[in-house]
Amino acid sequence: SAIPETRENVTLINWDTLINLDQGDPVMYESYWRKMGNRCDITFSGYQSLSYFANAKNLCWFLEPKLEEEIKRLHNVVGNAIVDDHYVVVGTGSSQLIQAALYALSPTDQPEPISVVSAAPFYSSYPEVTDFVRSGLYKWAGDARNFEKDGPYIEFITSPNNPDGVTREPVVNGDQGILIHDLAYYWPQYTAITSPAKYDVMLFTVSKCTGHAGSRIGWALVRDKEVARKMTKFMEISTIGVSKEAQLRAAKILGVISDSCLDPTLENFFEYSQSHMTKRWQKLREVVKGSDLFTLQKYPLQYCHFTRDFYESHPAFAWLMCKGSEDDLEKLLKGHKIQTRSGRKFGSDPKCVRISMLSRDEDFNIFLQRLMSIQGLTNGN
Amino acid sequence: SAIPETRENVTLINWDTLINLDQGDPVMYESYWRKMGNRCDITFSGYQSLSYFANAKNLCWFLEPKLEEEIKRLHNVVGNAIVDDHYVVVGTGSSQLIQAALYALSPTDQPEPISVVSAAPFYSSYPEVTDFVRSGLYKWAGDARNFEKDGPYIEFITSPNNPDGVTREPVVNGDQGILIHDLAYYWPQYTAITSPAKYDVMLFTVSKCTGHAGSRIGWALVRDKEVARKMTKFMEISTIGVSKEAQLRAAKILGVISDSCLDPTLENFFEYSQSHMTKRWQKLREVVKGSDLFTLQKYPLQYCHFTRDFYESHPAFAWLMCKGSEDDLEKLLKGHKIQTRSGRKFGSDPKCVRISMLSRDEDFNIFLQRLMSIQGLTNGN
Repeated sequence: SAIPETRENVTLINWDTLINLDQGDPVMYESYWRKMGNRCDITFSGYQSLSYFANAKNLCWFLEPKLEEEIKRLHNVVGNAIVDDHYVVVGTGSSQLIQAALYALSPTDQPEPISVVSAAPFYSSYPEVTDFVRSGLYKWAGDARNFEKDGPYIEFITSPNNPDGVTREPVVNGDQGILIHDLAYYWPQYTAITSPAKYDVMLFTVSKCTGHAGSRIGWALVRDKEVARKMTKFMEISTIGVSKEAQLRAAKILGVISDSCLDPTLENFFEYSQSHMTKRWQKLREVVKGSDLFTLQKYPLQYCHFTRDFYESHPAFAWLMCKGSEDDLEKLLKGHKIQTRSGRKFGSDPKCVRISMLSRDEDFNIFLQRLMSIQGLTNGN
Repeated sequence: SAIPETRENVTLINWDTLINLDQGDPVMYESYWRKMGNRCDITFSGYQSLSYFANAKNLCWFLEPKLEEEIKRLHNVVGNAIVDDHYVVVGTGSSQLIQAALYALSPTDQPEPISVVSAAPFYSSYPEVTDFVRSGLYKWAGDARNFEKDGPYIEFITSPNNPDGVTREPVVNGDQGILIHDLAYYWPQYTAITSPAKYDVMLFTVSKCTGHAGSRIGWALVRDKEVARKMTKFMEISTIGVSKEAQLRAAKILGVISDSCLDPTLENFFEYSQSHMTKRWQKLREVVKGSDLFTLQKYPLQYCHFTRDFYESHPAFAWLMCKGSEDDLEKLLKGHKIQTRSGRKFGSDPKCVRISMLSRDEDFNIFLQRLMSIQGLTNGN
């Protein structure tokens, strides 16, 4: 049965408590890191890392050399991105790198800000991050599928996509397109690694790779030196670099993940998280299958060069659609104490919602129980 | 004599090497933190701080409760700011808080961006941080002393001032002025604590208080709830919060500083750094006194309520002026392998430069030696 067993930790949660599956907070990964014991421990002494600088000789002068090394090593182990001939620029999460990329790629000699687009449903932060200080350099121009202006534009290609988990290609294909590839979810627990990504600007984040969202560490792989330099400049002006503690801890954690893939005595991080995601998606699909109200996005089976096996995507978010007459799915679910994010915020239909699949087990199980309890669900089960 | 003794570590530095006193990198403080041994050690396990959230119930939901507690405790111990009835908003260094404050305080219903001013010489980052993405909300309008426009404006009051260390008050005094008090240097090692600051928006940073610039932790004390909420929103959009590792380590370090002020068995951080700054300033003044070329900013003796004694300011930067015919002091000093920052960048005279007083001992001593070696200096010595 898809009904989770009643467990002690479940009974501790009040049935009136809202289950928050809005932000994609990746606390699911705590269980893996607890199992790793003190292998990831890192200690800072009072006299360490006082300086603004990490490596004054590097183009990205605040990037810890150890983090750069472990980022490159992990990409080589996983095979999800080409790192040779790319500069690494570290950011305070990928949000800051998104802004840095816009800053670096926008023309400075134009009277009008450059149009920034992404195909709907698009990551809900893109419009907000692009427009919040009303920049004269760049301006959100909405769904890439409806973009018909001539001239330069910037297109975000999020693959696998947030919110719907689908593998993506550019859609505008204009001759003056500048592309930013947001690959936050291009890791084996979420999708098959079909080939190493090789783009001009690729964004990654620790949050969705290892689950350490609290560290606020992201990185960009950037082919062009001048673009990497401008992105670094953005980081310098906006925050004078990135926390050294967070960088050094991220380096440690990425290192342990690489080790876990290479050392058979360790539990492989990606196998563990693939198995966790697969089970969650199976449970969710079973609940939704028995429902007349809901459907879920489907994904093809693809060959993964990392696991050397076929794998169906198990995205970090479920993209749930309402088949019934209900127009506002976020509201419907909130009425059942499930906080999700409306499709409206992704430039899409309010009959859809995005639901985090990365909560703790107890929250995920309560979510399933509440989803089942919604009227109409029980009919087909 | 002001001539530093020749020491082993000095002889290791090549005489061709540029001494970088441009950024104000506070590595001077390493010596204190080394003496504190493992008292400031902090260890992170792999399973800690995965979540984006630190305290979902707090207005600033990513602020670690322990950091908030230690910030308030230190202000109470030092007596440099009122924390009651103020919200604490944490930022990735005070640079991010400067932007957050501009974002929160700018009117959103005006056709033109609000003017942002500060009295020259002003912190060189203000114009850059205000204008780098060409915001439509706010716009740099230069020296506050020349500002004569009617209507609303934002004025930065930096006190003690960066670059010149002078205690400051608002200068525009228009009836629609919105004030941001940048109090990064309002700590006992730099200046007398004459009274607890009590302003609507006050900015502080760990970098200049403890020397941990690599952590990128700053905080704002904000009286108005709506302003605090908007500043938090800025942080949420731009970086989805602030590194938990950096916050927790900062909490630990601020805690040790408070302890050191209260526990007589520990070496008082501010006494140690006051004594260090006093010695450096004495040496520098001795070198400059013997010179026909240079003069330094002078500071009054003021009563410090923290040390209960009179103290003359010993700012984090020296503001050196050229008396001679040389028009470009930065260039002159660079010719003698001393990298400083030209007065031009602070909206002031290129006959002035800002020089970091927070370098390591060996760099500071070489700086003095090179300053003495500049032609004309030796005459009067």
